Amino acid sequence: MKTVLEVGALIQDAQHIVDGPAYLVMADGLIESTGAGTYPGDPAAVQRIKRPHSLAIPGLVNAHGHAAMTLLRGAGDDLPLHAWLEQRIFPLEAKLTEEAVYWGTLLACWEMLRSGTTCFVDMYFFMHEAAAAVAESGLRGVLSWGMVGLDDGSRRQAMAHARSFVTRWHGAANGRITTTLGPHAPYTCPPDFLREVAALSAELDVPVQIHLAETRREVAECLEQYGCTPIQLVERCGLCTRPLLAAHCVHVTDADIELMQQHDIRVAHNPQSNLKLASGVAPVPRLLQAGVTVGLGTDGAASNNNLDLFEELRLAATLHKGVSEDATLVPAAAAFHMATAAGARCAFLPPNSGRLAPGCTADVVLLDMQSPHFVPGHHRLSDVVYAAGADDVTDVWVAGQQVLAGREPVTLDTERVRYEVIRLRERLTGPGN
Amino acid sequence: MKTVLEVGALIQDAQHIVDGPAYLVMADGLIESTGAGTYPGDPAAVQRIKRPHSLAIPGLVNAHGHAAMTLLRGAGDDLPLHAWLEQRIFPLEAKLTEEAVYWGTLLACWEMLRSGTTCFVDMYFFMHEAAAAVAESGLRGVLSWGMVGLDDGSRRQAMAHARSFVTRWHGAANGRITTTLGPHAPYTCPPDFLREVAALSAELDVPVQIHLAETRREVAECLEQYGCTPIQLVERCGLCTRPLLAAHCVHVTDADIELMQQHDIRVAHNPQSNLKLASGVAPVPRLLQAGVTVGLGTDGAASNNNLDLFEELRLAATLHKGVSEDATLVPAAAAFHMATAAGARCAFLPPNSGRLAPGCTADVVLLDMQSPHFVPGHHRLSDVVYAAGADDVTDVWVAGQQVLAGREPVTLDTERVRYEVIRLRERLTGPGN
Repeated sequence: MKTVLEVGALIQDAQHIVDGPAYLVMADGLIESTGAGTYPGDPAAVQRIKRPHSLAIPGLVNAHGHAAMTLLRGAGDDLPLHAWLEQRIFPLEAKLTEEAVYWGTLLACWEMLRSGTTCFVDMYFFMHEAAAAVAESGLRGVLSWGMVGLDDGSRRQAMAHARSFVTRWHGAANGRITTTLGPHAPYTCPPDFLREVAALSAELDVPVQIHLAETRREVAECLEQYGCTPIQLVERCGLCTRPLLAAHCVHVTDADIELMQQHDIRVAHNPQSNLKLASGVAPVPRLLQAGVTVGLGTDGAASNNNLDLFEELRLAATLHKGVSEDATLVPAAAAFHMATAAGARCAFLPPNSGRLAPGCTADVVLLDMQSPHFVPGHHRLSDVVYAAGADDVTDVWVAGQQVLAGREPVTLDTERVRYEVIRLRERLTGPGN
Repeated sequence: MKTVLEVGALIQDAQHIVDGPAYLVMADGLIESTGAGTYPGDPAAVQRIKRPHSLAIPGLVNAHGHAAMTLLRGAGDDLPLHAWLEQRIFPLEAKLTEEAVYWGTLLACWEMLRSGTTCFVDMYFFMHEAAAAVAESGLRGVLSWGMVGLDDGSRRQAMAHARSFVTRWHGAANGRITTTLGPHAPYTCPPDFLREVAALSAELDVPVQIHLAETRREVAECLEQYGCTPIQLVERCGLCTRPLLAAHCVHVTDADIELMQQHDIRVAHNPQSNLKLASGVAPVPRLLQAGVTVGLGTDGAASNNNLDLFEELRLAATLHKGVSEDATLVPAAAAFHMATAAGARCAFLPPNSGRLAPGCTADVVLLDMQSPHFVPGHHRLSDVVYAAGADDVTDVWVAGQQVLAGREPVTLDTERVRYEVIRLRERLTGPGN
């Protein structure tokens, strides 16, 4: 049976807004039709959901993160990136188990559902357990087993993990789960290993995601070691012949941007993580100007410290104005596009993703227009980008299935998730702080 | 009767955290005692509120804003400050009525209560109606009638408004309302008018708040017109002999900062408004280093576009790290202090404000530790600063009176507020966008 949502207003995409009663018909996981006013078909033949005080928007896409790092939320702050990694994160990660990744990923899914994210891109380890969690949660996941190739042993292991993970999970959960290869970064994956990854990506026919040009130090070391920038390096290693998503790209040159545009390298912009870890501010206006596809990511909860994409959306729309002292940069519509349709392209979802239009995937978020954030309501899109928050998200559908209802996940036992994660934390670091 | 809150954890101030069961006794609007564990007194002799899954923190202080600008939320975005003011804001403000300011201020109070703010600093017009709204809401307000002195008529009117407002409202609502003078800015208040304001402030024995050094253009024009910076100008006009709060201070020199430190000028840092209006990034680490008191403000909802102080708290703790590429700047405790005790000092509240310690005002916020933002809970203060959001605020007390319960204001008819503000918007700009 078809489901008809009757709402108070509808944002189809950054350019198309119905500011008044509207309906949306979902069938077989897709949006069959949308329109202004009330549903014109036979109401008895459909499941009709009346939400006159709700605003429907496309589900948000989190284009970069490490879901199970929720386990490490708040475990280390106010430290420079490399000290943070080496003194706090790596020692704790060394203690993580498959079980921990499973529960940590479920915690992330809960948090993302609550804040209106319907699809997320992920790179971590023990990914069979992460994928099982995603399957259970009802979200879409674009998952990769993070690959490090500093020696022969780690390379062999990385290739084996990646192959087994892609083979097992690509297209699983009715297509909600897709996979990519996930070489970690140029500083952990030498050139010949990156070449092997490019070849495996072609063989398995999956895209690639990688961290690139996150810090000044990374770029300086790359220049010193290989005589080229990280962007140039991945091109030389053949990764640009593959669909490629690059996270961060904070420190890129004009020549890098030209290469990125030429090879359609997609960028996951993580403004809050880049600020908190003191990496800097990515040149997003220049990337957009060059026609590069830019999506938004939270990064892991250890470096953010939450998975709320509304915060990234707001920051993407305000940060570049402020640091460039130009209030016309990244206007509301551009930021909204980054969080939805452009994010879907970063995640390698099919082109019918990230919008609420006929034929598109039925990934729908309802926001409560009775919240003060939507009052008085001069401009719905502006209110979503500049005023709304996770607290306004009430209901979420993914592929036409309701996964959040009245602010509570339909698919998860949140009490159990909380219990297990706190139990696992006590094993990691002892109780309390 | 005393009220005893028994909570799961307690942040007294940026330096003192009880991470485990704790209690807090409120009597006569003050905190009588706090401690770890359960209340040791006779439970039958008190009103006992058991909230084992809540974290108690001091109420947040919003050190700068224009509450009734909620009426203009989303009415103009993505424009440079002066175009935004002249093309969008001033024409709409010219149509605002006393009734509009009353309802707009109530909307702001609702939004601030929901996001854990217990005290706010305000500068606007039709302030008798704004003060009536604050009295009704249960919040603390530090209010001023904005003064502009571009000609003799506006000066006389500004002085009369300020005098009548201070006389009528200073100390009203059991002391929840205090007043200041509010000369708008050096570019709307010439030096001789600022001297008159300083004299009136001394006569009425109230502090002064002003916008200072918000944009590069303001500083350039001040240098051109008066041969000094805005900070130097207010000193020359005698405002520094009065308790003084300066909003913004984005473009200040080292010499300015020395003056500010010397005269104890308090600063309201509004990071999100400064980004959105492309004003720039205030040198907060340098101000803190010099010992200047810095609080956090949202500014008006037309330039933010919400009144959520958690966003400012997070931005204060991350923005300066990012733009300075130094992850140790503005650590979590410093940001939390800005949002609480330092904010209280900016608002000229008595020294027993902004902390949950014996003898302090009973302005208390409860956060839901069952939210994913507090799981697993490695560090409570980090979770508040880097992960929590308005959606975690469940209950608020001001001066020992509960004003938010289960996320709903106790004191406001929110349905009526929404209805009236939407009605007033339709009168301002017509329905919809």
